[in-house]
Amino acid sequence: MKIELAENYGFCFGVKRAIKIAEENENASTYGPLIHNSKEINRLSKDFKVGLTENYKTFKVGDTAIVRTHGIVKDELADLHKDGINVIDATCPYVTKPQEITQEMSEAGYDVIIFGDETHPEIKGVKSYATNGARVVTSVHELKSMKFKDSIALIAQTTRKVEDYMAIANYLIPRYKEVRVFNTICNATFENQDAVRKIAQKSDVMLIIGGKNSSNTKELFNISSDDCKDSYHIEDENDIDYSWFNEKKACGISAGASTPDWIIQNVIHSIEKIPYKL
Amino acid sequence: MKIELAENYGFCFGVKRAIKIAEENENASTYGPLIHNSKEINRLSKDFKVGLTENYKTFKVGDTAIVRTHGIVKDELADLHKDGINVIDATCPYVTKPQEITQEMSEAGYDVIIFGDETHPEIKGVKSYATNGARVVTSVHELKSMKFKDSIALIAQTTRKVEDYMAIANYLIPRYKEVRVFNTICNATFENQDAVRKIAQKSDVMLIIGGKNSSNTKELFNISSDDCKDSYHIEDENDIDYSWFNEKKACGISAGASTPDWIIQNVIHSIEKIPYKL
Repeated sequence: MKIELAENYGFCFGVKRAIKIAEENENASTYGPLIHNSKEINRLSKDFKVGLTENYKTFKVGDTAIVRTHGIVKDELADLHKDGINVIDATCPYVTKPQEITQEMSEAGYDVIIFGDETHPEIKGVKSYATNGARVVTSVHELKSMKFKDSIALIAQTTRKVEDYMAIANYLIPRYKEVRVFNTICNATFENQDAVRKIAQKSDVMLIIGGKNSSNTKELFNISSDDCKDSYHIEDENDIDYSWFNEKKACGISAGASTPDWIIQNVIHSIEKIPYKL
Repeated sequence: MKIELAENYGFCFGVKRAIKIAEENENASTYGPLIHNSKEINRLSKDFKVGLTENYKTFKVGDTAIVRTHGIVKDELADLHKDGINVIDATCPYVTKPQEITQEMSEAGYDVIIFGDETHPEIKGVKSYATNGARVVTSVHELKSMKFKDSIALIAQTTRKVEDYMAIANYLIPRYKEVRVFNTICNATFENQDAVRKIAQKSDVMLIIGGKNSSNTKELFNISSDDCKDSYHIEDENDIDYSWFNEKKACGISAGASTPDWIIQNVIHSIEKIPYKL
């Protein structure tokens, strides 16, 4: 089996930065999973005693709360500060940016539209900065029943496909006087998506490694599936079904921005052991 | 011969307004042709003694200068005021808007890109409002060799095709942090273009009536040609070649925003006289 890694994959700047922050803050707790990868969260818990809480109200005075890469809802952050919690911010700077843009645009009177998943923590956070509210959409279809003011600010979840974002922009621009389009899709997303597109075209089977609730991993999987029908989204080597490799010669691999290298290496070692059957 | 007019065609709001202003100012002179239609300019000259000068420096104290629908270069307007000329502004309000946007965006530090024809008076005027300069482009191809700042303001000539404008926006948005897209293509342009698209699809021959240097008429002709290969751009009934109608059943007609109704009526009367040959 020929195994090839995408040119760009795996841990991005924001994730590396957050893990470093967590490792430097033993005994702290993250509010929500630091990144969308349960295996890495377990490692931080085991090796660095970094806890995890899903309810920020359980933090007590003197506790250290780490804000996850995806950010935090504005009022919750204010509550933590008010309650005397020591807050360490591991929000990815590429997520802080759309939060700031959202607040600025909302205060300037723009109708704010966020392209992304309303239930995703990043978008819950970003939306909370819209002083005058914002609408979150995932497709042009949803826009068709909505009315907006003449001036619109358009902001994207950092991990979305640029083609889908452009479809939204293309719907809005001819219909409204001003559409202020912020390209908040992060560079790592662009690069990983470009790389997966290239490698999927020349692979017989594709493995996309990452948390099942990781937005950017899901997008990589969607892109991969477009060019290689035998694409699989796995969390680690335990998800591999060896029958996928029957009569396959070339296996391409990519991984989401929150997938640690050690998981990717485990996957590669597992496939290397597959006997070559044609 | 079945003759059908497009649902929307001819004189737009800005042209009607400018002609009214000219008719109310006998003995004034326009700086450059008031609209891109020489026949209508001749009528204003003959019936209302409205003159025409191509050099604004020939105006003398006490003269009345009418600014054409396409606007005027900022410094030239300032000179006219300084020289004690009585200035009557017939700039189309839909052209004043992109002038204002250009100035505001330029002063706010945006890299200003204007989609349009650099040699067209409207664009000469709009560009002159870019305090810190602006680049004028007609295609994505030209953009490829250009570098811009992270924040771009994109402005369109009022009479351009929205599809071509979107191509420019689609190139820029994924490549720059912020693209502020102003939809400055005027509603009359949208409506006339939509209407010509519809009628061209069901016509055997199409006549697009308007000045040969009229930007919006040229766009109507381009759109018409996409759907009806026998499309002709004429200035008036004298340009008609009767052989165009041999073996044709349905003739569609549209006209540019600066084409007066009396010219359209003359064209219709000329075709009505054509003997029906199949």
